[in-house]
Amino acid sequence: MFVVEGEREITLAFKGGYEIISLIYCNAIYNETVLMHLINQPIERIEVPIEVYQKIAYRESTEGIMAVVKSKNHELESLTFKNENPLILVAEAPEKPGNIGALLRTADAAKLDAVLIANPKTDLYNPNVIRSSVGCLFTNQVATGTTEEIIAFLKEKNINIYCAALQASKNYTEVDFNFGSAIVVGTESTGLSDEWLSKSTQNIIIPMEGEIDSMNVSVAAAIMIFEAKRQRKNA
Amino acid sequence: MFVVEGEREITLAFKGGYEIISLIYCNAIYNETVLMHLINQPIERIEVPIEVYQKIAYRESTEGIMAVVKSKNHELESLTFKNENPLILVAEAPEKPGNIGALLRTADAAKLDAVLIANPKTDLYNPNVIRSSVGCLFTNQVATGTTEEIIAFLKEKNINIYCAALQASKNYTEVDFNFGSAIVVGTESTGLSDEWLSKSTQNIIIPMEGEIDSMNVSVAAAIMIFEAKRQRKNA
Repeated sequence: MFVVEGEREITLAFKGGYEIISLIYCNAIYNETVLMHLINQPIERIEVPIEVYQKIAYRESTEGIMAVVKSKNHELESLTFKNENPLILVAEAPEKPGNIGALLRTADAAKLDAVLIANPKTDLYNPNVIRSSVGCLFTNQVATGTTEEIIAFLKEKNINIYCAALQASKNYTEVDFNFGSAIVVGTESTGLSDEWLSKSTQNIIIPMEGEIDSMNVSVAAAIMIFEAKRQRKNA
Repeated sequence: MFVVEGEREITLAFKGGYEIISLIYCNAIYNETVLMHLINQPIERIEVPIEVYQKIAYRESTEGIMAVVKSKNHELESLTFKNENPLILVAEAPEKPGNIGALLRTADAAKLDAVLIANPKTDLYNPNVIRSSVGCLFTNQVATGTTEEIIAFLKEKNINIYCAALQASKNYTEVDFNFGSAIVVGTESTGLSDEWLSKSTQNIIIPMEGEIDSMNVSVAAAIMIFEAKRQRKNA
């Protein structure tokens, strides 16, 4: 079980099929009818005074409502793809919750078929992941696994592996994303492991023309994902 | 005058033509030869003990060196374009220093001709802008002005104005960015002002297919900027 704060985030968790165990709210802060979507659900409701709420809330600008939510299974085996040629984002060992949240937000906008976290270093249900994803942790199909497991999974499904890398890389606009494709990004500091690079269908690169040589990982991922979307729309 | 912390940032400021007034460093933390690029420059050097350095440093993970730098002129009139068909990013009233920094970082990677801040709400030299831009505040041509001034400037130079907006918008991939183009973004909460929207050559939109209806402003800007770059490379 984990905690979700905020009306929008709780609504998205509910819509994403997460089981809400209980709602904790403070009438002094939260004065709406408690969550329209949940109004007829048999969920335990706990009203607390403001002093208690402020003590248990994680967020600074609290909205007066939080939920205790049952965690889901994030195994690779649970993934199902409606799309015959899925478009997937893989992030290897992302550490910063803010980066994970930003990736999930972009993945939602692009309606990716899945987001896979390889060798996770941060709990998916970390409050800063939930907050920076603005609830998109719950709107995406998310699975975790070791790098080895995820590579085996992608190979078995005949999904092309496009690793963002500096070596032996093709311009990302020259790759054909119309087939099943996984766009794989590493950390800003160390990039992807050799394990990924050696199993890559093709390494890809966003040409950098300025003075600095690195991009924010969520920005780079978004540029590649939306190029894939553009190609698929025009195909 | 303003303060720049960190070796990389100071180096980029120097390379970007900023005048370094003095270097303040602490030998207990900073043990390199002080900044190779500046080694023969007649710059005042002040060594301070660690207690003093930690007191004056803004950053938590301090690198032991900071510089006092002379601010530059950021007037529209000072802009010069090498490119006949410049590609420009305009951000209206961005508030969060982290967003401004991320925009500047993307602008550097794309080697944009300029970044214009309309109706600025945050000091360009805010330490969090410098930090989150990883020094790209200094590698870009940056100018500020009112929305009115910037629109007049763009019109006078025959630069097309593409406003990111939800209303009356074309898919961003269907616009021709090969002519002089300004990609204009507002804030995540309120979008662009009517002043921009009414003067737009064409409003553009990144189609959102997920549950949420907004994108991080720096992610959205990056997607549009790199689509423009792609078109220009293929033209």
